[in-house]
Amino acid sequence: MLTHIRLNKDKDLPLYIQLYEAIRDVIEDDNIQSEKLPSIRSLAKQLGVNNVTVVNAYKLLEQENYIYTVKGSGTFIKRPSFSQDNYLVEEGDMELMLSGIYPLLKNSIDFASVSPTPELFPIEEFKKSLIEVLDRDGGQAFLYPEITGFGPLRESISEFLLEHYSISATKDQILITSGGQQGLDIISKTLIQPGDVILVENPTYPGAFAAFQSRGARIIGIPMDNDGIDLDELKSYVKRYRPKFIYLMPNFHSPTTICYSETRKKDVLRLAREYDFYIIEDDFLTDLSFSDENKLPLKTMDKFDQVIFIKSFSKIFMPGVRIGFMTLPKALMKDIIKAKHTTDISSSGYLQRAFDLYLRKGFWRDHIENITAFYRDRYQLMISGLEKLKHFGISYLEPGGGLSIWVSLPKDFDAIELYEECGRRGLAIVPGKVFFTDSSGSEKFIRLSFSAVSEEEIHKGLGILKDILSKSENEPSEKYMPFL
Amino acid sequence: MLTHIRLNKDKDLPLYIQLYEAIRDVIEDDNIQSEKLPSIRSLAKQLGVNNVTVVNAYKLLEQENYIYTVKGSGTFIKRPSFSQDNYLVEEGDMELMLSGIYPLLKNSIDFASVSPTPELFPIEEFKKSLIEVLDRDGGQAFLYPEITGFGPLRESISEFLLEHYSISATKDQILITSGGQQGLDIISKTLIQPGDVILVENPTYPGAFAAFQSRGARIIGIPMDNDGIDLDELKSYVKRYRPKFIYLMPNFHSPTTICYSETRKKDVLRLAREYDFYIIEDDFLTDLSFSDENKLPLKTMDKFDQVIFIKSFSKIFMPGVRIGFMTLPKALMKDIIKAKHTTDISSSGYLQRAFDLYLRKGFWRDHIENITAFYRDRYQLMISGLEKLKHFGISYLEPGGGLSIWVSLPKDFDAIELYEECGRRGLAIVPGKVFFTDSSGSEKFIRLSFSAVSEEEIHKGLGILKDILSKSENEPSEKYMPFL
Repeated sequence: MLTHIRLNKDKDLPLYIQLYEAIRDVIEDDNIQSEKLPSIRSLAKQLGVNNVTVVNAYKLLEQENYIYTVKGSGTFIKRPSFSQDNYLVEEGDMELMLSGIYPLLKNSIDFASVSPTPELFPIEEFKKSLIEVLDRDGGQAFLYPEITGFGPLRESISEFLLEHYSISATKDQILITSGGQQGLDIISKTLIQPGDVILVENPTYPGAFAAFQSRGARIIGIPMDNDGIDLDELKSYVKRYRPKFIYLMPNFHSPTTICYSETRKKDVLRLAREYDFYIIEDDFLTDLSFSDENKLPLKTMDKFDQVIFIKSFSKIFMPGVRIGFMTLPKALMKDIIKAKHTTDISSSGYLQRAFDLYLRKGFWRDHIENITAFYRDRYQLMISGLEKLKHFGISYLEPGGGLSIWVSLPKDFDAIELYEECGRRGLAIVPGKVFFTDSSGSEKFIRLSFSAVSEEEIHKGLGILKDILSKSENEPSEKYMPFL
Repeated sequence: MLTHIRLNKDKDLPLYIQLYEAIRDVIEDDNIQSEKLPSIRSLAKQLGVNNVTVVNAYKLLEQENYIYTVKGSGTFIKRPSFSQDNYLVEEGDMELMLSGIYPLLKNSIDFASVSPTPELFPIEEFKKSLIEVLDRDGGQAFLYPEITGFGPLRESISEFLLEHYSISATKDQILITSGGQQGLDIISKTLIQPGDVILVENPTYPGAFAAFQSRGARIIGIPMDNDGIDLDELKSYVKRYRPKFIYLMPNFHSPTTICYSETRKKDVLRLAREYDFYIIEDDFLTDLSFSDENKLPLKTMDKFDQVIFIKSFSKIFMPGVRIGFMTLPKALMKDIIKAKHTTDISSSGYLQRAFDLYLRKGFWRDHIENITAFYRDRYQLMISGLEKLKHFGISYLEPGGGLSIWVSLPKDFDAIELYEECGRRGLAIVPGKVFFTDSSGSEKFIRLSFSAVSEEEIHKGLGILKDILSKSENEPSEKYMPFL
């Protein structure tokens, strides 16, 4: 595939740089027939150069995240590993959508979806608000609200931020969005020019990936450890690309469930200040902590207006309301509001009014306590069940919150094969590759969620998993447990 | 500003093409200090070429819509004339937003806004649906609906399309959107690559302009006559640029109020077939016809799946519901659904269910009859009032529907000055330039809307207008009445 490349020994530019640039262009132009690059020896021979020229070119390409090497197998082009061609017209979670897992759910035990359970929706309380708004506001409730959102709701959110997260933001620093995903879309519109490099955690939420990519961003995944994003890697990419923003989920990160340590939070904020980039903090689960310790967002520590806090209520309230919000940094306020307007004029004024009333009536705290207690039980059931499977070689963090567990598989297991075998036996799980920006290591993880299953189903599902695991060798792989 | 340009006489490329390309690059790079180009003679002298070289270069630039010439004044760079910098954080119509007219509305008679009157909102009927959905569906009402929209609503819309517009579209060919503007945003995401040329009517709806532009489209406005878009001009641009789509409002076009003739509709469809482009039909007022003749959309005549019909209910139902829809051509279905998902996952399932019930209960027809009767009265009041101002030199079409009148001013009036003078006297109007893709002729039009004013206010507003008009010379300008 690289047969057209010609290097020029008379040029000032070193040969390995010339080669690096030529291959990079091929990759960026998407002009590739194979994911695998020629071997060092064969490419050197073809080009009439020393092996070391190719070695150096490949090294540079690897550093810049264009390629990766699998020992014994060869060198490959990095690509987002989830196939967006498998796109299906179904309701629900972005990651399931992108991975094409949905058909499986129909008659399966659902360890795949992180959709909340409708029986936990506070329908009675919200209904009161919905009706009261109609009686109170009449036709006004259905006029266009302000682009930034219904004023009183922005006030309520301002108080909500202070009360629950110790975040100070005035109502004018808040934009109501039609859900968290719209926040990502609006940020993409505001900040991304085609070709821009955006840094994300790897693995990450594919819905963010898709939003950034739809604006032509080049996305680079930064590995994580148990305290959050790898700071050295982050720094090296930040230095090289000077991104406008990076995208993080500091609490109950999806899919790894990791919560950032205080130190890592501070380090990331310091880096943002030093290299002048924004941090998009995507928060959809901070509120769902099963321990006594209350989690706080990264935004709480943001002194210099560098964190854009995007809040989704889909998992902790009700997805069908489609109301979320984001904070507005001063320097971007005008551009973000304009992007919101171009996107959908404004979010439903009626639902904004009802949600405002719901918050003002003080229903929120009870609701969160209610769902936390409920999910805590399921979580503990899941964790104690998984505990019994540990001797088969699986491992996982105990997140102490959220809606799922990120499981590292025994050495001889491949996540896709396991996913397929589970599927055949009536259990839907999510293979890790859905979340990775490249394919390195992604085959060793699965995500097991407990938000959409009954206690009985948790028992049954873990039984299926046990059955499959027990039929193989039980050798855990330390190589593949970067998060443990 | 063009001092850096160097032409090369030894090149194969004719000098005037070289010059054309050089100036085009300057314009496209937005690298300009002045809107006015040097005179032909001075540029020829500076470059050491014949006048005719510059003349030919300018001619080519004008043909390609980069520049325009005002006799006696000079040659100018074409730009969208509404300033997006005047952006204000207020509720409401895109055009008012973009033009920064809002502050004026606070204490003025509002001939500017086309927002519907809340007293016409069918609150009681819709409330019934809202409550019934809660009782019927419980928590299910707040789950994620399908990305394409709540299935039964898509069925209702399918029937709606057949019943009211004689359009055949199955539920699977319909995508529910969070309002009409989102349809434009999704189309932009699906079809526009940076640098693509999009053809629109000139003048047109600035919200569409903004959505296309946010994806990096280059927008070319095609003039209109009383039957619709100018077919010869359209054809010449279609041939030159082979656009993926053109954007039209065939019924009660905004802002001109023009309805396409049947012949023009057929001609445009034929052209779309011949040159293989999509037509985005933006429909927000078809239903509001004051004559006995029922208007039908262009989509009704679409045999070859080339019209994407985007429907907004904001003006004819209630803007705060934020529910609209678009039809899905087969070839784009997958991409559009993906774009919708990346945009906001899905539109509010609860409101979709309520709107579905509202349609199924058969409230729609009564509602449309009700608002039509109401607006017909205001329309007639406005028209008969304007009739009395005709001798001052204004002219206008009688659209027989919609929510506003597009008025051509007497020769010695400038729309911006009139707008400012009206503003000082407590009357808010929209100067035409808000709607034009360039500034040619835009200074001769104003839009007067009657959707947000009482009968008394119509009298008062027209009185103010009369007062201003009567204090000047009364010479109508035929030059500036392309639509009459």
